[in-house]
Amino acid sequence: MASSCKIKDQFHEFFPEMLRCLKNSPPLHKLPSMQEWVEKIVEYNLKGGKMNRGMAVVESFMILKNHQVSEEEKNTAIALGWAVEMLQAFFLVADDIMDGSLTRRMKPCWYRTNNLGVKAFNDSILLESLIYQIVSSYCKNQHYYLPVLELFHDVTMRTSLGQAMDLHSAPNPNEAPDLSKFTVETYDAIVKYKTAYYSFYLPVAVAMRLAGIQDNDLLKRAEDILLPMGRFFQVQDDYLDCFGDPEITGKIGTDIEDGKCSWLIVTALPMCDSAQRQLIEAHYGLKNTESVNLVKSLYQQFDIPKLYTEYEERSYKELTQMIEGIKHQLPTSIFQGFMEKIYKRLN
Amino acid sequence: MASSCKIKDQFHEFFPEMLRCLKNSPPLHKLPSMQEWVEKIVEYNLKGGKMNRGMAVVESFMILKNHQVSEEEKNTAIALGWAVEMLQAFFLVADDIMDGSLTRRMKPCWYRTNNLGVKAFNDSILLESLIYQIVSSYCKNQHYYLPVLELFHDVTMRTSLGQAMDLHSAPNPNEAPDLSKFTVETYDAIVKYKTAYYSFYLPVAVAMRLAGIQDNDLLKRAEDILLPMGRFFQVQDDYLDCFGDPEITGKIGTDIEDGKCSWLIVTALPMCDSAQRQLIEAHYGLKNTESVNLVKSLYQQFDIPKLYTEYEERSYKELTQMIEGIKHQLPTSIFQGFMEKIYKRLN
Repeated sequence: MASSCKIKDQFHEFFPEMLRCLKNSPPLHKLPSMQEWVEKIVEYNLKGGKMNRGMAVVESFMILKNHQVSEEEKNTAIALGWAVEMLQAFFLVADDIMDGSLTRRMKPCWYRTNNLGVKAFNDSILLESLIYQIVSSYCKNQHYYLPVLELFHDVTMRTSLGQAMDLHSAPNPNEAPDLSKFTVETYDAIVKYKTAYYSFYLPVAVAMRLAGIQDNDLLKRAEDILLPMGRFFQVQDDYLDCFGDPEITGKIGTDIEDGKCSWLIVTALPMCDSAQRQLIEAHYGLKNTESVNLVKSLYQQFDIPKLYTEYEERSYKELTQMIEGIKHQLPTSIFQGFMEKIYKRLN
Repeated sequence: MASSCKIKDQFHEFFPEMLRCLKNSPPLHKLPSMQEWVEKIVEYNLKGGKMNRGMAVVESFMILKNHQVSEEEKNTAIALGWAVEMLQAFFLVADDIMDGSLTRRMKPCWYRTNNLGVKAFNDSILLESLIYQIVSSYCKNQHYYLPVLELFHDVTMRTSLGQAMDLHSAPNPNEAPDLSKFTVETYDAIVKYKTAYYSFYLPVAVAMRLAGIQDNDLLKRAEDILLPMGRFFQVQDDYLDCFGDPEITGKIGTDIEDGKCSWLIVTALPMCDSAQRQLIEAHYGLKNTESVNLVKSLYQQFDIPKLYTEYEERSYKELTQMIEGIKHQLPTSIFQGFMEKIYKRLN
């Protein structure tokens, strides 16, 4: 834990150095107004989060190298951690516009600042471009340069595909959701693509490449654990959206009123008789307290909180076994570190 | 000319093959609904344009290789040509949302189809991801793979920076433009970044890499000609927006009502006395015929059409001299081909 705190400090201390590097990148050369603008976008959208994804790059790398790394190697891992955070910021800025969200990390969403509105999409694209400036600045001429670029390309495409599946399953404004689209299969595909790849697979895969691992089968083995772990994380998120304590989660869930394809609804639907299904048809996706409470009481009738606890226990066991199964190829502490952070979490 | 038509046919004939390749890419594997969706986005947004940028890759490559290329080499050039068209589509889909445009290539803009609205931004990101799938599918394991990736990263960032500068110089809705921002320096920076890099430099640079050119100085020499050529092209565009024949250009210009930072306004402003400047302050950026006509008549008073013809002649001479100056390093026909297409164009 002490070492993780130290990494967190080092991670944050590196921020100004990363920013200086970006402002000196060739495309920004001789464009002082754009250097300032990029600084503003990056400051606003990369700070204030938990940095779990970025730090996971550094932590995984340290474990893979048995904590024997030079200052330069550690800085490269930190820089790539910031690149992962940049990817997240790129998607969040865009998602917030598409979802019409109001706040992010206790501040107004970026598009609601500086008179931006829909023009903020361009800043989302800029954030994405900065990923490649970071990777090139810190990895150029290294054997892992190309594989790391390919990882970012691949995960970016998968995340956008997940976002597309999510957008296509969501109802249009003022329309009822199409419940026939809300299946476990759809849910699993959305979660895997939209969240698990970039939040769980990417940080570890980047760290593995950086540590010199060139065996694609080994990356596949790690993926086979990290993607279900990402699903586990998202199921928790969905559960906490409805049944979490806002005092602890720090946010008030709106999945029911937004008609989201959440784990709760895809779990509840197959248990419905026709009257219960009609009730959901009539109330899921409506922005009024009465409708939300009706859906919530149905979730209670179906014992969703108990089913959730059972799922959590079952998943935890399965994941622990999978981690055990990889111990001769990869240090298990990489995966255990993730599990510790998410198992039985309340926020 | 015969050979250019043949290239055009081959370019179009390759489209289904490129699409098949994209649909078989690893991220789309096992996602039939997304394969269909990607096909729909690509069909709608890549067809129907002039394909000048994409074909310039193939034409430049053929010239560089003295027309001695294998079928496979030509197909790679065509695939990369489609990647350049993909980059253009990625930006156009996003720009149309940000500008609130209504039509593109005689059809409704993509965001106005399929009930998309602002959600279409995710499709813009998907189009960008497809660039890297094309490059990887056709160039993996080639010595030019990494340089071509870097070219796309670099040009994408520059284009977004140009778009940012353009958005920042444009007035907010229902506000008067800030004329102090409309300088030749601002205009030159916007045009160079937003248009010249991806439309002129990128196709030739990709072709040079593909032809095995590894000399960065030579790329710089080509850039030194192609960027001013891109400016020349954009000045023409701005001129035709105001003084072109809609019957020939196929569109009705709106730069004056939109309060755009165009070549005409940055040329006119330094010639204004204080009364004329007040007139522009009062009318530039207003969406009514009277205001537009007032600005146009001022342009006429300042002899803008004559100044434009002089600029066109002067630029043509300068560019011809620059092309002459590079003849011992690069085949001049690459650059002359561009010039023929744009000099004295009316649409």
